Amino acid sequence: MIEDNVVYIGNKPVMNYVLAVVTQFNNGASEVSVKARGKAISRAVDAVEVSRNRFLPESKIKDIKIGTEKIATDRGDSNVSIIEIVLSK
Amino acid sequence: MIEDNVVYIGNKPVMNYVLAVVTQFNNGASEVSVKARGKAISRAVDAVEVSRNRFLPESKIKDIKIGTEKIATDRGDSNVSIIEIVLSK
Repeated sequence: MIEDNVVYIGNKPVMNYVLAVVTQFNNGASEVSVKARGKAISRAVDAVEVSRNRFLPESKIKDIKIGTEKIATDRGDSNVSIIEIVLSK
Repeated sequence: MIEDNVVYIGNKPVMNYVLAVVTQFNNGASEVSVKARGKAISRAVDAVEVSRNRFLPESKIKDIKIGTEKIATDRGDSNVSIIEIVLSK
């Protein structure tokens, strides 16, 4: 069994990430962590909600954390918000 | 003292909502609830993070909830993700 499974949310359609989450549970994970930053945060919440409501009705939201990360850009450092949502069976 | 203070996040610049959060604390609130749905969820996290990091270093994130709401549209019901972040002093 693989622990510490993480799904990083990017700019693809929500269903891609839903599939990734469901697949990790089907492969034996007891927890899946969904991480996103910036504008992808909304999509992370969508992915978790669709996963729970449609495919994993027995799963629970174990923890939700938000925070801030510094990222280097062409014009110096910039702050970006991050979210981590931990789903467990 | 007014309890149950809520700041709803819409499409305005993040700093408008930061100001709303800070003002509620300055007016005596012990908790402020930041709510958003759909694409505004990312902005809600931004507003909470900027409020905490720049203006309310003593505040804590008491709770974060996510969920799904049905909204009526021209083309029938649609699901939208929601978030509620509770900040406390």
